[in-house]
Amino acid sequence: MTAPASTAVVALQQIAPWVGRNDENRRRVARAIADAAAAGANVIVLPELATSGYMFESVDEVRAAALPADSPLLAEWAELLAGTTAVAVVGFAELAEDGRLFNSAAVLDASGVRAVYRKTHLWNREKLFFTPGDELPPVVDTEAGRVGVLVCYDLEFPEMVRHLAVEGADLVAVPTNWPRVPKVTGDLFPEVMIGMANARVNKVAIAVCDRAGRERGQEWNQGSAVIDQYGNVVAQRTDAGLLTVPVDLTVSRDKTLTEHADALGDRRLDLYGGDAAKEGDR
Amino acid sequence: MTAPASTAVVALQQIAPWVGRNDENRRRVARAIADAAAAGANVIVLPELATSGYMFESVDEVRAAALPADSPLLAEWAELLAGTTAVAVVGFAELAEDGRLFNSAAVLDASGVRAVYRKTHLWNREKLFFTPGDELPPVVDTEAGRVGVLVCYDLEFPEMVRHLAVEGADLVAVPTNWPRVPKVTGDLFPEVMIGMANARVNKVAIAVCDRAGRERGQEWNQGSAVIDQYGNVVAQRTDAGLLTVPVDLTVSRDKTLTEHADALGDRRLDLYGGDAAKEGDR
Repeated sequence: MTAPASTAVVALQQIAPWVGRNDENRRRVARAIADAAAAGANVIVLPELATSGYMFESVDEVRAAALPADSPLLAEWAELLAGTTAVAVVGFAELAEDGRLFNSAAVLDASGVRAVYRKTHLWNREKLFFTPGDELPPVVDTEAGRVGVLVCYDLEFPEMVRHLAVEGADLVAVPTNWPRVPKVTGDLFPEVMIGMANARVNKVAIAVCDRAGRERGQEWNQGSAVIDQYGNVVAQRTDAGLLTVPVDLTVSRDKTLTEHADALGDRRLDLYGGDAAKEGDR
Repeated sequence: MTAPASTAVVALQQIAPWVGRNDENRRRVARAIADAAAAGANVIVLPELATSGYMFESVDEVRAAALPADSPLLAEWAELLAGTTAVAVVGFAELAEDGRLFNSAAVLDASGVRAVYRKTHLWNREKLFFTPGDELPPVVDTEAGRVGVLVCYDLEFPEMVRHLAVEGADLVAVPTNWPRVPKVTGDLFPEVMIGMANARVNKVAIAVCDRAGRERGQEWNQGSAVIDQYGNVVAQRTDAGLLTVPVDLTVSRDKTLTEHADALGDRRLDLYGGDAAKEGDR
C-alpha cells in the first residue's frame, strides 16, 4: 500500500460532451487526460458520461456511444498516464457483454484499467436508458492514494461516501452531470453542499467533476469542486476547462476529531449497522 | 395520525444555562416554553442540557443537576402547553433509576411527557460524564406533526436523520450545544451545513436549537437554525432569544424529487441495508 501525498494535485476537467458526436467526445477525453497529466496532476477526474453526452432521446443513442470495459480506447487512455503516478477517473456509457447499458466510471492508471464502477443510483430519466449497477463502488489503491468512486446522484446517498470512507478511501472521485438547479443557503450548489457534509462527517476529500456546455437545451451547474476533509471547498470552477489544486490526502487517514471523538469510531454500529473501519490500514 | 400543518410555527429558544445554577436554569426553561407557546408556536425546541449547563468539571456536578424522566418538573412543563397543540423538545441531564446519567431530550405536549431520548453519540468529554443511550431516537406523533429527536453530535451521523425520515418524521428537532468552531465555505457553521445536507437528502425539515452565553470560558456558535426540506436555512439567530418561523411540514410527506426520482425510494437497500419507508403512512 502506498501512502498518499501531503500535496496531491487534484485536477478536474470540466469538459462538454455532446450526444451523437462520439468521435469528438472521445478525442476530447484523451486530450483532457493528457493535458491534466502534463499539468502534474496526481488525481484526474472527468465528468459523468464524458464519452457520450447526457441528453439521450433513445436507447439507440446510448448504444451507439457505448464502449465495453475492455475497449482498446480505455487502454489507450491509461497509456497516456505512462511515466506518471497519476490516476484518472472517467465517466463513460458502458456496453456489457450481455448487451446491457450502464452509466459507468473507469479508474485508470499507468498499469491499465484498474476498475470499472457501474452507477447504482440512476437519476430520473437515466432509468429509461441504463441498468443500475448491482455492486457497491470500489476503493482502488493507486500510487496517488486510495481512490473511491461514485457517479453523480450516488453522492446524495450518505450511505455511499460512508461506505468508501470505511473502506479506507483517501479521496472520493465523482464524475457528474448536474442539470442546473437553484442554489441553496451559502450561495452553494445543493450537490456541492451535500458533498461538503459528506466530506466533513467522514473526514475524507471529495473531488466532483461536473460538465460544461448547453446540450439539447439543458444547462448545467458547471459546479466542479474539490472539497477538503473539513468540508471546505478549496477550489471551484464554473466555466469550461481545467482546475487543479493541491490537497493533503494524508488527513483522510486520521479520523480523530478531538481527544475523545472519532468520525468513524463514534458510529453506533450496534444501533444502525455498518462495517467497522479497517484499523489496520490506518 | 394527525396531518402536519402547512404553516407550522417552529420556535427555537436560544437560552443560556449555567452549571451550578440549577434552580435558575429550570425557571428559565419553564419561561422559555411558556413564552414560545404564547407566541403561537407549534413546535418548540430548547437547547441540549438546558436544565444543567454543559461545562461540567465532575460527575457530581452532573448528578446535582440531573432529573429523573418522571420528575414532576417535566410534567409541569408539559402542563404549560395545556390548551395548545404544541410540542416541546427540551434537553436535560437525566438521572436513571439505576443511578446512571444520560444526556437526554424530553418530548412534551399537553398530554404530558411523550418520550425521552437518550443521546447515543456522546461528544468528546461528555464520555467522561454520561452513559450513551442504547436505543435509536423516537418519532413522536403529535398534534403538531411527527417529530423526530436527536441531540447535537447525533446530527453528524447521517444514519440518524435517515432513520428518522424512514420512520416518517415531518421535522427533526435537535437540542444542541455547539462549542464555537470556524465556519466553512458559504459562511456556514459546519453543523448547520451538515443539517442542510441531511434535510435535503431526506426531504425533511430540521430545527436545531443551540445555546447562548459564555460558560466557564467556553463560547458557542449560537447557531440555532431552521432548515427546510430543500436544505435552505429559513431562519437563524446568532444571539440569545426566541426565533420563530413558519415551515410547511406537509412537504416532508412527499419524498418524490422528479417524475422518476424519490429521495427514500431510490436508496439501494440491497447494497447497504436499511429499512423500507412506511409507504402506508405517506
